[in-house]
Amino acid sequence: MGKLLRINLTKGTFKEEKLRENFAEKFLGGRGIGAKIMYDEIGPDVQPLSSDNKLIIVTGPLTGTRIPGSARHIIHTRSPLTGVYLNTIAGGHFGQQIKHAGYDGLIIEGKADSPVYIQIFEDAKEIKDAKFVWGMPTDRTQEFIKEAIGETKASVACIGPAGENLVPMACVINERRAAGRGGAGAVFGSKNLKAIAVYGGEDVPITDEDAFDDALKETLNSIRTTPSLIARGYGSAAVTHIIQDRIGGFPTRNWQTGVFDAIDGIYPETWIPKYRVKKHGCPFCPIACGHIVVICEGPYAGAVTEGPEYETLYSFGSVCGNSCIESIIAADEICDKLGIDTIEAGVTIAFAMECYQRGILTKTETDGIDLRWGNHEAIIALLRKIAYKQGFAALLSEGVRRMCEKLGKGTERYAMHVKGLAMGGYDPRAVKGMGIGMAHAPRGGCHHNSTYTMYEEAMTPDADPLEIENKPLLVKDLTEKRMILDLAPLCMFLWPALRGLQLPLKLLTAVTGMHLSTNKLCEIGERVHNLERAYNVRLGITRKDDVLPERLLKEPLPEGPAKGHVWEMDILLDRFYELCGWDKATGIPTREKLESLGLKDVAEELEQLKLQR
Amino acid sequence: MGKLLRINLTKGTFKEEKLRENFAEKFLGGRGIGAKIMYDEIGPDVQPLSSDNKLIIVTGPLTGTRIPGSARHIIHTRSPLTGVYLNTIAGGHFGQQIKHAGYDGLIIEGKADSPVYIQIFEDAKEIKDAKFVWGMPTDRTQEFIKEAIGETKASVACIGPAGENLVPMACVINERRAAGRGGAGAVFGSKNLKAIAVYGGEDVPITDEDAFDDALKETLNSIRTTPSLIARGYGSAAVTHIIQDRIGGFPTRNWQTGVFDAIDGIYPETWIPKYRVKKHGCPFCPIACGHIVVICEGPYAGAVTEGPEYETLYSFGSVCGNSCIESIIAADEICDKLGIDTIEAGVTIAFAMECYQRGILTKTETDGIDLRWGNHEAIIALLRKIAYKQGFAALLSEGVRRMCEKLGKGTERYAMHVKGLAMGGYDPRAVKGMGIGMAHAPRGGCHHNSTYTMYEEAMTPDADPLEIENKPLLVKDLTEKRMILDLAPLCMFLWPALRGLQLPLKLLTAVTGMHLSTNKLCEIGERVHNLERAYNVRLGITRKDDVLPERLLKEPLPEGPAKGHVWEMDILLDRFYELCGWDKATGIPTREKLESLGLKDVAEELEQLKLQR
Repeated sequence: MGKLLRINLTKGTFKEEKLRENFAEKFLGGRGIGAKIMYDEIGPDVQPLSSDNKLIIVTGPLTGTRIPGSARHIIHTRSPLTGVYLNTIAGGHFGQQIKHAGYDGLIIEGKADSPVYIQIFEDAKEIKDAKFVWGMPTDRTQEFIKEAIGETKASVACIGPAGENLVPMACVINERRAAGRGGAGAVFGSKNLKAIAVYGGEDVPITDEDAFDDALKETLNSIRTTPSLIARGYGSAAVTHIIQDRIGGFPTRNWQTGVFDAIDGIYPETWIPKYRVKKHGCPFCPIACGHIVVICEGPYAGAVTEGPEYETLYSFGSVCGNSCIESIIAADEICDKLGIDTIEAGVTIAFAMECYQRGILTKTETDGIDLRWGNHEAIIALLRKIAYKQGFAALLSEGVRRMCEKLGKGTERYAMHVKGLAMGGYDPRAVKGMGIGMAHAPRGGCHHNSTYTMYEEAMTPDADPLEIENKPLLVKDLTEKRMILDLAPLCMFLWPALRGLQLPLKLLTAVTGMHLSTNKLCEIGERVHNLERAYNVRLGITRKDDVLPERLLKEPLPEGPAKGHVWEMDILLDRFYELCGWDKATGIPTREKLESLGLKDVAEELEQLKLQR
Repeated sequence: MGKLLRINLTKGTFKEEKLRENFAEKFLGGRGIGAKIMYDEIGPDVQPLSSDNKLIIVTGPLTGTRIPGSARHIIHTRSPLTGVYLNTIAGGHFGQQIKHAGYDGLIIEGKADSPVYIQIFEDAKEIKDAKFVWGMPTDRTQEFIKEAIGETKASVACIGPAGENLVPMACVINERRAAGRGGAGAVFGSKNLKAIAVYGGEDVPITDEDAFDDALKETLNSIRTTPSLIARGYGSAAVTHIIQDRIGGFPTRNWQTGVFDAIDGIYPETWIPKYRVKKHGCPFCPIACGHIVVICEGPYAGAVTEGPEYETLYSFGSVCGNSCIESIIAADEICDKLGIDTIEAGVTIAFAMECYQRGILTKTETDGIDLRWGNHEAIIALLRKIAYKQGFAALLSEGVRRMCEKLGKGTERYAMHVKGLAMGGYDPRAVKGMGIGMAHAPRGGCHHNSTYTMYEEAMTPDADPLEIENKPLLVKDLTEKRMILDLAPLCMFLWPALRGLQLPLKLLTAVTGMHLSTNKLCEIGERVHNLERAYNVRLGITRKDDVLPERLLKEPLPEGPAKGHVWEMDILLDRFYELCGWDKATGIPTREKLESLGLKDVAEELEQLKLQR
């Protein structure tokens, strides 16, 4: 039933393709369809920045409807930052417009000779010259492209200078929302693709309108009456208190501790009432987790951003030892405009700051920049240069892993990444289940896969973040449930209001007419989880790569509620692999598991690879 | 026939008013109608930043049609920078939309209790809360207001932080075009008025469609075939060569010379081909004088602006001894976003630089900023602070005259302004007629009134910029003709293609159906010229205020084609007043002159004032 639009930038062609029949049944949508196409089309010999790599941008069955949290799109590609699997999700109108233009997703392949943008209107698909926006920040790019196409209601996803310059931490922006992690922006850049503008008027078909209305009403009602929807007040920034005060896992000064002594300026109640001029949400979302903030005085006067989210409070705040919220707001804006992932940028700067603390870097190497903890002027100066690979910042622009590799000198103990992706802002020493997620997440040290673990581990009344016995099962269960939300898609912030998979099931059934059940959904979730894993296994990823940075395994937290704790890697991963049906020694899904999930072809391919080794 | 919309921010009311019958006949439109309403409604006791001051924003009979150069609006108010008459003109869609919403102009009076914006749609006029955009730069303000009103095709004129902070050099921006001079932005700010959003679908009525089509065709054809339309290639930047090389009047290092030794980086052919990504024009304009430029490397990487125009090349370039074009582009962008007049800002910085050169200012006073000539980092740093009145920059934010008054220490010889308005970038010592315009222009040291003099003095084959005999007559004649273009309105860049007033006459007749002639137009031009003068006379302005800075009268140009020349004030003004019918001793229009122009009431009021003195 669904349709994809395949765009070849080398040939300049557009081709409509029907989704293969069993695709939706087996992979549902979103991240599932993306993983399947990646597995089929982006083989292990495809280099991330080569013209053979592809951008697979998908929506899900719910995108384009009035369901809150469904306005999302997911970009899949082989990551130039990590070299492995990448998906990166963003809100905003872009996913919706893909649906309204008549598609479930876009597959972009090849490479244009010179800068271009893709225009996808229902009746006008074109690859157009983008020289007039090349070099522009993302806000200007959107402005000028809308002006050029004469359709201000189009949605434009684009890259900034960082993506053009193939900075491996470059992101993709639509409106003020980022598909942030893993360097999809550099893949855009490598294809000479500056932007994609989409606009359409097609309604998304709904199979059972009455059931849809009921399910939607129920969902909205549940959102309204669920008190624990923390994002409602201060957005994701609201978790700062929990991470710092309750669990003591707010990574500070490059993860040297989990309690930020200067946190006051970062607590949302300190700055959001002061600087927020407006709440903002994705289409149809009553939560409106975004806050538009404006700085009117001091050295950062004039800064405007939507956010910063919790992760950015971490990445330009605690992890850099910086409590100047105005500078964090300014840094967030710079990253959005230049098209840089805030997490990778901040954690790489924090890494540099620790090297500076320890005398491994001095002003001689840093172009004279003083990298003392909390020097926000240095953070701002470096960000502007990272996007252009200027001077010392060229080293930082590589991201934390590669910077560490190039620097050497024993710095790997300070490089806080997994598989080359800088870690999200939750210290697994203080919240154990999160560590499982971050260790094995397909795109690297990402907090997203296990966000719901975090919720169950730290935010419910009887949660115990330090307990380890029950965590492997919890993580497996919630990773697969979270997966369903990335397939639908439904924004993760809705989780506490969704009654497990009850409401997603109702919504998906009403829209698609598929015969679904909670069990069936869980099976799909597990299937996609295994398929993503298999993608990485095919690239050589095994248990040896599911390793958190040494610091987390060996240096106990020095203070706070989790004082004395490290992360118990072996116990936790042993049990987790077992529950997943993955080989304990290698972390590779067993043949049985893959076959039981209907992934026989995948099982056979992995088997053959093993034989070759 | 025309309609004005009167908006009272104190009362929150909208009132439609018909233009009085003889208004159009006597004052035609644009600057004429604006001057008349100012004269009638903004008396000499109204302080610029008081709630009694008004914003009179008018279009002209041609605005909203397909005529190139007619997409303009003119803001009138009593200037908070100079204290005298102010009009300030901008292109873009704002004027057009006022017409399409059904009005010839807006009169805004009173003061809102808290930040508001005005929404003017044909069917929905409202004064709305603007707290959500207060503090935002002008680009973000436009973005967020369009988002809030849900009409992306609306045109939004707004202020930036400078206007909010009542900086007397604050401008008003619509799209990327500025109504720049004299501080209209601060008047917006003083009324708590952040923005005006206008949108409508009404056609502008055309009396004689056939004649209109003919006149339009003729105009377009003339534009196409007039070789001397210098703006066509590089916009106003194209005159740099003429001002520097032909006349030697490119004000350098605060007017210490007229030849900029480091001009190479500023010549348009050096930077426009390198940085221009696109030409840009106002609606229906085939000239497209604007250039969108983007900087992709170096310390100013990421800067994007439309421009800079010639005046900005002067104000952040030669007059500050700065030849780094990238910094001028960045400065232009900052000014547009923060809502600052580039000319006033640059000339004030140049003034500070000369004080620094002479030891009158040292780093002690400048917050440690090194104000040596050409220090572009200092220029950029100061601009960000001027908008917020921070530290030393608070002094600069007052504009050149008041900064000089506050500084004292004999600095008035370095303060390059007339009546409190920083001078435009043409040295009258090298182009004599321009001096007459700048000396007597109603808003102060402005180059606009006499732009056509400049053209005739320096750009035609047998022009003689240093000749003085014929200049007074030339200036009088061309000031009045230029006036007609500000009434129509027609963009001044079209002048060489308009065959004097021939084409304006045809266009105006076709659109309005009025019985016009060249003579009648000249009479209207002279009438408005005198009415504007009378407005200032009523405020106490006389010949004593029509004085160029002492430097231009006493310090001969040290080099270049005009080496040895000063500006011959007495000879030139004596003759000019005589030709205008203004009293030679006072510069006040004679009773006879005013009565002959049908301004008897004005004559009587001035007479009475004289008696009171």
